[in-house]
Amino acid sequence: MDRNAPIGVFDSGVGGLTVAREIIRQMPDERLVYFGDTARVPYGSKSRETVIRYSRQIIRFLLTKNVKAIVIACNTASAYALETVEKEFDVPIIGVIKAGAVAAVRATRNGKIGVIGTEGTIGSGIYTEVMKQMNPDIEVTGKACPLFCPLVEEGLLHDSVTDEIASRYLSELKGRFIDTLVLGCTHYPLLRSTVGRIMGGDVTLVNPAYETALELKALLAEKELACGCAEDPAADKYRFYVSDLAEKFTAFATSILPRQVKETEKIPIEEY
Amino acid sequence: MDRNAPIGVFDSGVGGLTVAREIIRQMPDERLVYFGDTARVPYGSKSRETVIRYSRQIIRFLLTKNVKAIVIACNTASAYALETVEKEFDVPIIGVIKAGAVAAVRATRNGKIGVIGTEGTIGSGIYTEVMKQMNPDIEVTGKACPLFCPLVEEGLLHDSVTDEIASRYLSELKGRFIDTLVLGCTHYPLLRSTVGRIMGGDVTLVNPAYETALELKALLAEKELACGCAEDPAADKYRFYVSDLAEKFTAFATSILPRQVKETEKIPIEEY
Repeated sequence: MDRNAPIGVFDSGVGGLTVAREIIRQMPDERLVYFGDTARVPYGSKSRETVIRYSRQIIRFLLTKNVKAIVIACNTASAYALETVEKEFDVPIIGVIKAGAVAAVRATRNGKIGVIGTEGTIGSGIYTEVMKQMNPDIEVTGKACPLFCPLVEEGLLHDSVTDEIASRYLSELKGRFIDTLVLGCTHYPLLRSTVGRIMGGDVTLVNPAYETALELKALLAEKELACGCAEDPAADKYRFYVSDLAEKFTAFATSILPRQVKETEKIPIEEY
Repeated sequence: MDRNAPIGVFDSGVGGLTVAREIIRQMPDERLVYFGDTARVPYGSKSRETVIRYSRQIIRFLLTKNVKAIVIACNTASAYALETVEKEFDVPIIGVIKAGAVAAVRATRNGKIGVIGTEGTIGSGIYTEVMKQMNPDIEVTGKACPLFCPLVEEGLLHDSVTDEIASRYLSELKGRFIDTLVLGCTHYPLLRSTVGRIMGGDVTLVNPAYETALELKALLAEKELACGCAEDPAADKYRFYVSDLAEKFTAFATSILPRQVKETEKIPIEEY
């Protein structure tokens, strides 16, 4: 495996860019290939079987770009597909669930943790499973928030409607006296201030994107795959691919990432 | 073509069931095959090219069920794909746009019509185009309402949040003094009371699902394809197919249709 090869990152759409952003921040020398499945977004309301099939196609595509490691930057795909695909492919693959779960278990003082995410992620029970493996006494409460993604994609990050919807979704979690809350969908860090205000200052918010970038860094170091290419920055250091509507993606990507995204290429992902 | 063959109806998901419901109401003798593309829903935010590719696959699938006519019960797919696919396939195909546009032009007294729909439908400008062909003096104002579908799918049909979002989306249309409003997405008839209250009693709401069923009835009569099978009702009179999550679909379908939907079959639509 070539240590100067890029890292592959994929998501159902734009949300995974919050993970790409953390990787770029923490590992500025690394090259990155991002794929957003904008023709089939969202994954959160789809079945395990379908999400696994889509993930396989995307991994096959990323392998054509000679990636040295793959990050599934989508909570739903991590929940449904990671266990299956990590056995099927030779490249190291990590998801966003484990790092977030570990950070939450470390952060909690009263043993009561909340997780918010899509219907798929919450319904899978995966966060609870991983946390209970670490500590069976942990009490985990999951809550699906299906309107959060559409609200973020409409740009209503600071809005009375988002406040109202968030208050409803989060009231159950407040009633459980959790002291730690996992933002278990890649769109949710963009609602961090709203969620933080409603939950109150005593609740620690865990962002799996940040934790996953840390995990990736450790993994690359361990496998001696960390990039040594700082002195020769490639022109195509960050490359973006989608399955639909490249222009719309480019605009959103530019608003999230620290540098302008110049070009996004559209790929017929069903053929992989 | 067999006049006792079923009518094929398709949509990106559950929304087209409002069209199926109208067909069942107006043509109780007809058999019906419904396909909901739940693995790739929604279409409203996707590109023309992608929506055409998806529509072709679904039409090929419906033809394996020997349908005698096809209704594209999705405004976005009607806007993007109808013109292309009606040339490519031998079976009569109708969409939901034309019937709705015709009804609106007939209904308006002051010549000012509003249209609400997905980003795809509104961005295509198709309602405006069809209405202007009928009467170039008609003034059409389109407004995309991307949060309406997620709100309906969350069941918030009568809710203060939906009221607030609807008030924002509709304020521009109110300012244009329209007297007729097309509910240009199959989910929107389920928000009829909210939209009607905000627009006021003087604004006529046009439901393309109803108008499309009328158009279909006329088409079948004209082509001598109306069903003659009333005396021998088939056990599988209404058949439902989806690309993902059959159970969730079955529950929603039962809540919308006049009779219980017993079974929904999952189809690998990418293979068609």
